[in-house]
Amino acid sequence: MNKEVLDGLFKPKSVAVIGASATPGKIGYSVIKSLINGGYEGPIYPINLKADEILGIKAYPTVFDVPGKIDLAVITIPAKFVLTAIEDCGKAGVKGLSVITSGFGEVGDHETEAKLVEMAHKYGMRMIGPNIIGTLSNSDKLNASFANILPLPGEASLISQSGALLIALDEATHLRGVGFDKLFSLGNMADIDFADIIEWLADDENTKCIALYIEGLKEGRRFLDVCKKVNKPVIALKAGVSAHGAAAAASHTGSLAGAAKVYGSAFEQAGIIQAANLDNLFDLTMAFELQPPMKGDNLLIVTNGGGVGVLATDSAERYGIPLKFLPDDLQKEFKNYMPDFGSAKNPVDITGGAGLEGYKKSIEFGLKQDWVDGLAVLYCETAVTDPDEIAKGIYAAIQSAGDVIKHKPVAVSFVGGDRCAKAMRWLTDNGIPAYDDPDRAVNVLGGLRQYARMQEEKAHEHDGAEIKGDYARAVKIIENARADNRDSLTEVEAKEVFEAYGLDVTKTLLAKSEQEAVDLANKIGYPIVMKIVSPDILHKSDAGGVKVNIKDDAMTREWYNIIMKNAKAYKADANIHGVAIQEMAPLGTEVILGSINDASFGPTVMFGLGGIFVEVLKDVVFAVTPVSEGQAMKMQDSIRSKQILKGARGEKPRDQKAMANLIAHYSKMILDLRDEIKESDANPVMLYEDGKGLKVVDARIILKDK
Amino acid sequence: MNKEVLDGLFKPKSVAVIGASATPGKIGYSVIKSLINGGYEGPIYPINLKADEILGIKAYPTVFDVPGKIDLAVITIPAKFVLTAIEDCGKAGVKGLSVITSGFGEVGDHETEAKLVEMAHKYGMRMIGPNIIGTLSNSDKLNASFANILPLPGEASLISQSGALLIALDEATHLRGVGFDKLFSLGNMADIDFADIIEWLADDENTKCIALYIEGLKEGRRFLDVCKKVNKPVIALKAGVSAHGAAAAASHTGSLAGAAKVYGSAFEQAGIIQAANLDNLFDLTMAFELQPPMKGDNLLIVTNGGGVGVLATDSAERYGIPLKFLPDDLQKEFKNYMPDFGSAKNPVDITGGAGLEGYKKSIEFGLKQDWVDGLAVLYCETAVTDPDEIAKGIYAAIQSAGDVIKHKPVAVSFVGGDRCAKAMRWLTDNGIPAYDDPDRAVNVLGGLRQYARMQEEKAHEHDGAEIKGDYARAVKIIENARADNRDSLTEVEAKEVFEAYGLDVTKTLLAKSEQEAVDLANKIGYPIVMKIVSPDILHKSDAGGVKVNIKDDAMTREWYNIIMKNAKAYKADANIHGVAIQEMAPLGTEVILGSINDASFGPTVMFGLGGIFVEVLKDVVFAVTPVSEGQAMKMQDSIRSKQILKGARGEKPRDQKAMANLIAHYSKMILDLRDEIKESDANPVMLYEDGKGLKVVDARIILKDK
Repeated sequence: MNKEVLDGLFKPKSVAVIGASATPGKIGYSVIKSLINGGYEGPIYPINLKADEILGIKAYPTVFDVPGKIDLAVITIPAKFVLTAIEDCGKAGVKGLSVITSGFGEVGDHETEAKLVEMAHKYGMRMIGPNIIGTLSNSDKLNASFANILPLPGEASLISQSGALLIALDEATHLRGVGFDKLFSLGNMADIDFADIIEWLADDENTKCIALYIEGLKEGRRFLDVCKKVNKPVIALKAGVSAHGAAAAASHTGSLAGAAKVYGSAFEQAGIIQAANLDNLFDLTMAFELQPPMKGDNLLIVTNGGGVGVLATDSAERYGIPLKFLPDDLQKEFKNYMPDFGSAKNPVDITGGAGLEGYKKSIEFGLKQDWVDGLAVLYCETAVTDPDEIAKGIYAAIQSAGDVIKHKPVAVSFVGGDRCAKAMRWLTDNGIPAYDDPDRAVNVLGGLRQYARMQEEKAHEHDGAEIKGDYARAVKIIENARADNRDSLTEVEAKEVFEAYGLDVTKTLLAKSEQEAVDLANKIGYPIVMKIVSPDILHKSDAGGVKVNIKDDAMTREWYNIIMKNAKAYKADANIHGVAIQEMAPLGTEVILGSINDASFGPTVMFGLGGIFVEVLKDVVFAVTPVSEGQAMKMQDSIRSKQILKGARGEKPRDQKAMANLIAHYSKMILDLRDEIKESDANPVMLYEDGKGLKVVDARIILKDK
Repeated sequence: MNKEVLDGLFKPKSVAVIGASATPGKIGYSVIKSLINGGYEGPIYPINLKADEILGIKAYPTVFDVPGKIDLAVITIPAKFVLTAIEDCGKAGVKGLSVITSGFGEVGDHETEAKLVEMAHKYGMRMIGPNIIGTLSNSDKLNASFANILPLPGEASLISQSGALLIALDEATHLRGVGFDKLFSLGNMADIDFADIIEWLADDENTKCIALYIEGLKEGRRFLDVCKKVNKPVIALKAGVSAHGAAAAASHTGSLAGAAKVYGSAFEQAGIIQAANLDNLFDLTMAFELQPPMKGDNLLIVTNGGGVGVLATDSAERYGIPLKFLPDDLQKEFKNYMPDFGSAKNPVDITGGAGLEGYKKSIEFGLKQDWVDGLAVLYCETAVTDPDEIAKGIYAAIQSAGDVIKHKPVAVSFVGGDRCAKAMRWLTDNGIPAYDDPDRAVNVLGGLRQYARMQEEKAHEHDGAEIKGDYARAVKIIENARADNRDSLTEVEAKEVFEAYGLDVTKTLLAKSEQEAVDLANKIGYPIVMKIVSPDILHKSDAGGVKVNIKDDAMTREWYNIIMKNAKAYKADANIHGVAIQEMAPLGTEVILGSINDASFGPTVMFGLGGIFVEVLKDVVFAVTPVSEGQAMKMQDSIRSKQILKGARGEKPRDQKAMANLIAHYSKMILDLRDEIKESDANPVMLYEDGKGLKVVDARIILKDK
């Protein structure tokens, strides 16, 4: 990241608008108007070959005529002129380019788009766009876009891949009372993408949390790395997670949308909070910019209505912070703040009769208790209370709780009419997020808790860098296969690659004659398994090419010949390497490891239990590599059928540590060999009881086209 | 239901307020004020021993002094006077009672509460409450409650078990623009409950759909029956579905909250739409009162923004109406209504450039196509369009589509600022439901589709009434066990009961001597299974009391003696009935049937696959009895592991019809014997391939305490 260049682009000291126009309705007119109306304080340079002035500002025929330095050039001229304009900007010493003009990659012209980037980079410039709305920043009084207004001021920043949505959300910030400092429209992401901006926002003192609207990522791994590192909450709404939706996203932005499951896993690995929809994106953003993360699991609910209390209790379970009953001493104290028929168990139901004082005392007392990690305050409008008064009382009580509110989040929900809506707006304007449904208030507290949990996990996590593999040995095996014109490895070869990365495979040796088969069988020790090895025979069993439980030399000799004969009968011209002589692994719990090269995130590992669990229930989880042993433990615990690993139906617990070690090494292997391996699997892996390890019984590697 | 009495209660021609007061702050004052402010046109009779007039209305010392007939008496006096007041009302010929007063069942005084009901019924009156807010009806200009205002007028009616929530929701109707005709506060449901009101609303010409807030049901089966029969959509928000929440609900209303899973199944059986939270309850209610059900699966999305289009596509999948691409001819036509860079695939993206005309033409054309079953119109606020104009254009286009809109629902979402909010309010005021998030618009269309689907299923459904069982025979077996002082049946007895209801059990006969064992074995045919039969030995295998695969007479004799000896050694004083001689069923897919007597819904059947599916994955479904064969097919298809039944991993499909028949008969059995059977199971049932039926291998029946 070139910070100075990006500073020039996103916090420019001067702005030129190339294609500035005096004709209302033209984008070059709107941008000048937006800059003026936004109150931009630096010099604005309209660039227009013919005009002397636009909207009262002196215009210049070219960027070379501008008297001062240009930090940001906003380009609104037709597509065919953009490349030359960028060259001019480069020559004129412009720092950053915001290319609003459309008509490039999104209509199929990737070639010209690439040239724009090349040209920008040639002169050390960075470019956002093309095909964007522009960028907006409250702290810089900068509306360098054709959106009418700056967003409601606040401490969040939004990066949107959809321009239309950005304009709409810009307007919505005012309606919803969710403040933003900066809005970025990403467009085609020809140069600058999510990762670039997130990295830059990490140091932006006006941004406390980052909201994203994502359709597809071009450099998914870099995105994850940046999100992992940024010390600010990132909340993302990923569109295009349905089968049909993915297609729509592709046609919309020309980017590739990864599978929903992979995105979900990747976001969690990177500590990103995933929003369910637009409402939820606003809800979470408001909470994260106004409140601290929730550092423990104990949620306190204070309510004046039993009904909303019960609903919020359901929500707490739904969002991963199930309610607990309060300790007796706290219950005793809370009882003082409510009528006899109230309840102090949690939810603390001060009842409709308690009024303002009940809220104030309960909140102030509650927030000060070590037991309490977060607070939801619920209010049902009644005929005898004033929502405005209640809101002000809640605010005062929170303030008087003192410093604890710096690490205990509060969210509020008022259910009622216009007066409630106004009171809630007052609360949010004063830093307390408030929502019209208790479910939403509890949802954001769940998000604040999830974030804190992910941060804790990050702190205890190693990146698996200590894992070593014999890369050279693995590549040599692969190169041999490639030399042989093959796009996959044999089982024997795949197991050698696995071994090069320390995976515990069943000993497997290749016999090329009957005598060698006997020698190798004795070396491994009976019983053994024998399998045909031929790149031309994929379905070994169908070809009569597999025999298990071979017990002695005589049987080995007999079956060597049977298998070779069967193979030739199955496919006369098959290239036969020989017969694999293989250690017979005892039965265990069958698990499966696999890898894909995800379109967005690259090498990604999959874990699941074998048999019906993967085939019928599709009960698998993904993780983008590298995967540490800690993450691998979490992966195992996130399948639905995890009880099998814990020891179901009288079985002893499985050796999950050995499994975690295997996953970490496997992930290192597919990461190192990302340019060689397209897909792979270890299937089945026999996983034994705790302390007894595992064995990879079969191995498969499909090579990447080169 | 006594319609005339309930008419008097809910659409009274006159109202007396017992405990009417001239003191602001008192409930008896608020109710009179509400009646006046609501514009009630019938006579109001304040009842107060001392006052001559209250708020300008002539008051009377007792109900006997009132000059006219009293339809509704609202009671607000302290709890200890209520019983006498009810007696007076009865004597004075009052039709219905609305008991606002609290301090009965909810604080533990169930005895007095029961007396109130008894007294009311003695005089042919019905009572709503106690512990309520009152009832409100726009079409009757009746606000007989202490809520300040009538709800926004509309065609939905709401029944709420929480009074505090009712007041808050009353206010919220105005804020949210969701209209209601009637609001009912149910309180303790001592007499009138959900079912009574729903039944009455079925004939209410001012109610088009019914919204419920439920904490717990007292007569769950009747509730389901009424909901099944009512020809209006019922939308329910069930609170208290979490473990902790259930406890909170219990302490809140004294009612019993059933398990979330059973509620979910029961709602679906009864055709009830389940709301996820308060927002969703309002969203769905608005859609159901303004729009028709969606009669097919084909959703059309028209949008001006690709981003919201993709988001809505994701939502469509989420809510059970996954998007399909439009037929080519329709795509071709839509292409005329948008710029070149638009997309006509579905979502139909007319782009930001299309403006008003694009919307109008697309909507009018789209709605008229047979292919289209429902429509979502999405709009992202832009810098160059006016939300108000767009809203009016959308409305006009919908109207001009003609009669088709009577059976094709439309939902709208505008994303943007204040102007969008106003435009959406205009739309909803004019009958087009509009939401601030595309996800919400698609969600309600999903609800409208789900409702239509459930209605279709209802139309094709039999209630299982044709199934016959030998009730007398079953009861006799059970009575014998009871005479023996037992609370459960032996396997032999349980299988006899199963047989009495036509369940296909493995032949099982009781041998009381070695010779009888041989005789019965020959009658059944080898191989057989032998099992100890003793009410004192529950874990037969542990006691050495089971032997499978007995092949001949000699083995039968040998094992008869071994099993008897083992049983005596296991428990010297066990009451041993003998040894069961049992047909040995071939192995099949193990499934499990079970039954519980649910606290809310009574006899309820459970179905799942055996082994890990039930033990590890808890992959089971419930259905409240009776269960028809059609419903039983649906049950089987709603487990996650249903692929096993369809023939997974090279197996042939299982005999799901035989299974459906078994479930229907099993459900008939537990329904008939609901007063006898507490819990039961058929576990395992061996289910064979299609056409080959099944066998119930083991049976268990636990008796109800009597």
